[in-house]
Amino acid sequence: MDAASIQTRIRAVAEDRTSGASALARHCLQIGADSALYFPAKDTPSLIETLAAQAAEMAASRPSMAPVHQLLSRWRREVEGLHSLDLDTARRRAANAAAVIASLSHDAVRRLAQHARELIGDGQCIITHSLSSTLEEVFSGLRERGIRVIVSESRPLFEGRRLAKKLSGWGFDTTLITDAEMGLFVAEADVVLVGADSLLEDGSVVNKVGTYLLAVAARDRSVPFYVCCESFKQRSPDMGALELEEMSPAELGAADLTKVNVRNVYFDITPRRFITGWVNEDGVMDLGRGEGGL
Amino acid sequence: MDAASIQTRIRAVAEDRTSGASALARHCLQIGADSALYFPAKDTPSLIETLAAQAAEMAASRPSMAPVHQLLSRWRREVEGLHSLDLDTARRRAANAAAVIASLSHDAVRRLAQHARELIGDGQCIITHSLSSTLEEVFSGLRERGIRVIVSESRPLFEGRRLAKKLSGWGFDTTLITDAEMGLFVAEADVVLVGADSLLEDGSVVNKVGTYLLAVAARDRSVPFYVCCESFKQRSPDMGALELEEMSPAELGAADLTKVNVRNVYFDITPRRFITGWVNEDGVMDLGRGEGGL
Repeated sequence: MDAASIQTRIRAVAEDRTSGASALARHCLQIGADSALYFPAKDTPSLIETLAAQAAEMAASRPSMAPVHQLLSRWRREVEGLHSLDLDTARRRAANAAAVIASLSHDAVRRLAQHARELIGDGQCIITHSLSSTLEEVFSGLRERGIRVIVSESRPLFEGRRLAKKLSGWGFDTTLITDAEMGLFVAEADVVLVGADSLLEDGSVVNKVGTYLLAVAARDRSVPFYVCCESFKQRSPDMGALELEEMSPAELGAADLTKVNVRNVYFDITPRRFITGWVNEDGVMDLGRGEGGL
Repeated sequence: MDAASIQTRIRAVAEDRTSGASALARHCLQIGADSALYFPAKDTPSLIETLAAQAAEMAASRPSMAPVHQLLSRWRREVEGLHSLDLDTARRRAANAAAVIASLSHDAVRRLAQHARELIGDGQCIITHSLSSTLEEVFSGLRERGIRVIVSESRPLFEGRRLAKKLSGWGFDTTLITDAEMGLFVAEADVVLVGADSLLEDGSVVNKVGTYLLAVAARDRSVPFYVCCESFKQRSPDMGALELEEMSPAELGAADLTKVNVRNVYFDITPRRFITGWVNEDGVMDLGRGEGGL
């Protein structure tokens, strides 16, 4: 693996439109591990400097995704503690640290998924929006329990189709709808489960755009709204001001509209007051909301 | 114009995915007028029977669109009063009646548009969803007043793109967004204006699916929500139970998802409690809502 291919992979992180935040964060750690092992460096300090800069670049490229920042920050701290080691040992230790942190993230998701499953009764109907590796883990453990899942397609890139395909392959009774139909179909659901890209200090949740619409409709229909969000997704003060990433207008496929301002913001914020509870690796924090109408 | 081409046009009404309800209702009247003039009939009673059956077929094919039913019912009543006339006179009178009713519909839209414009201050920002010939008439009179319009693309067929193109051509500062972004962008608007396919007896509104999501988000953001809806759109008891039309799943473009239940419901219902006011040809009926949060 040469320097050019690693830099290509680092740049591709900014362009990734379809991975959820946790999956992308672990992918960044894998890039970091490969860079630790294979990126040219004349000595340990220059390796550390390179790895720290690469981690910072990847984190900065996805400001809406807290776990990308959190897992890479944690890894940078590990890497920066390797100064006294020889280059080969530092390489192996840095790669190993990345693997350990990715495995902590995986463990958190697995534990979260166990807690989330306790919320769901046999034969219930779940509605969700967008794609989330965390939610896939939840669904993976809900097979053969007679669960129906309603999935929105998630414009502009339709990652909901991928989730629907996976779920139907797992045997779920799966319904695919447009994002605009979420208000109509949330009334058929017993519960909303969504993932998150970031959890804000006030309990609000940053997730794929449209999540807020699903949340306000769920409240109006008295359907409980749970966010599955391991604690790595908590934003920390060192992350600076929140930025909702905006992607290329070309993804909306309206190229002929030359005089129209096409906006493609990928995330929105669902305020805490619409959230029935959060699920993380330690359990369910239930606010007991979601039962009343608007 | 022969019988076959008229029947093709009648069948195409059921397949029309992009016309608003009023425009489609007037289009049906035009088909009726052409049939009155050119459809083969041996005498006046058989002409009347044919026209009544064609009108009933068109109305039944669009159950979510009250004006299709209302304008065609009105026309049927006119046509059924022509029994005593000779065939040629009956043909001309039936065609003329269709033109008169279409022109009443146009007049109602023009008067509605004048009232709607009084709601909008210079330089304000309007957000809308889907395409509506009634709203186009409103916008047409708002040119050169520094108005910005935010338009959702309106999946599955993206008729919002057509509206955005028209508005930008008229000189509006026009923004196109995904349906999922409506919750994010409604906060930038001074007012929501939507059309309607039907107005229910309790004041709820049937409109392109997604309208309900925009309405609940508008309430949460304290943005007033007005429905532009001439009185021909009021459903009447003889229309039977409300049916929200569902179109072909193929329109969602997810043909590979063979085991997934793809749902393509075109309309949703926005309850009266989310509506700040209705605008019809007689003025604005304002409930004075939309100022408070959820």
